Amino acid sequence: MKWVEISTDNCPVQRALAVVGEKWSLLLLRDAAYGVTRFDDFRRHVGLSEAVLTDRLRKLVAAGVLETVPYREPGHRTRHEYRLTRKGWDLWPVLMALRQWGETYAGEPDGSVVHLTHRTCGTPVKVVVECPEEHLALAPSDVSARPGPASRRST
Amino acid sequence: MKWVEISTDNCPVQRALAVVGEKWSLLLLRDAAYGVTRFDDFRRHVGLSEAVLTDRLRKLVAAGVLETVPYREPGHRTRHEYRLTRKGWDLWPVLMALRQWGETYAGEPDGSVVHLTHRTCGTPVKVVVECPEEHLALAPSDVSARPGPASRRST
Repeated sequence: MKWVEISTDNCPVQRALAVVGEKWSLLLLRDAAYGVTRFDDFRRHVGLSEAVLTDRLRKLVAAGVLETVPYREPGHRTRHEYRLTRKGWDLWPVLMALRQWGETYAGEPDGSVVHLTHRTCGTPVKVVVECPEEHLALAPSDVSARPGPASRRST
Repeated sequence: MKWVEISTDNCPVQRALAVVGEKWSLLLLRDAAYGVTRFDDFRRHVGLSEAVLTDRLRKLVAAGVLETVPYREPGHRTRHEYRLTRKGWDLWPVLMALRQWGETYAGEPDGSVVHLTHRTCGTPVKVVVECPEEHLALAPSDVSARPGPASRRST
């Protein structure tokens, strides 16, 4: 069965994009990964209207990618911070892969906006598709694709 | 300087999403990575109208992610196939990272839609953020972030 004969209804890329494929969602998760937690910080930094931001955050919380944590500053009412869940942190490789591509093809001539390095040795980090058995970075031609048990015929 | 004080104007994630953040673009690239090349195959398989597909393909070609290659079948006029360029293939880790997340959090109980394995040893492939020096898969807490030379203050 060729790829074009396989239904995309349950394609995992499609299902991931159903959660984070909306404009701004990945940019909010990027900010969350860099430590932004508060509504006003997201709004100012990502550059979104209150209405759109409220909607996007609500969807990301509903999807279990962000969770809300109450906080209260003296003299103010209780508000909520937004924090990545484990499910949200598991999108980190997506963000890192987009970053890597953006640096390569749309980067600044003078270097990175943010340096991301391995904490213990200082080497710049890299996203790779690997063989976990051999710890070998793979090219697309090193990978074999065949229909799995959940594949269905396209109708 | 904290992340929230850094301008996102030249953020590489944002720049990557300016090219592939539009709905359907990554799904077209997914199909291209699985060997789809022809307009009608993209249209049927991804499930897009002709007008939207024409527009998305044109943008991906203009961005240098896809290239057109002429072909001609007997009795038909010359048409164009769409193929991933090197720049396009370099988005493969983004697709693979989305796939991995989709499999983990929105997968089918009976397994994968497509099995992707290392051709020489049969081990299922994995996307990791690694230290290329030590070939070590890293967690977010293993990575140090600091402003790079292209960072600008947010206004």
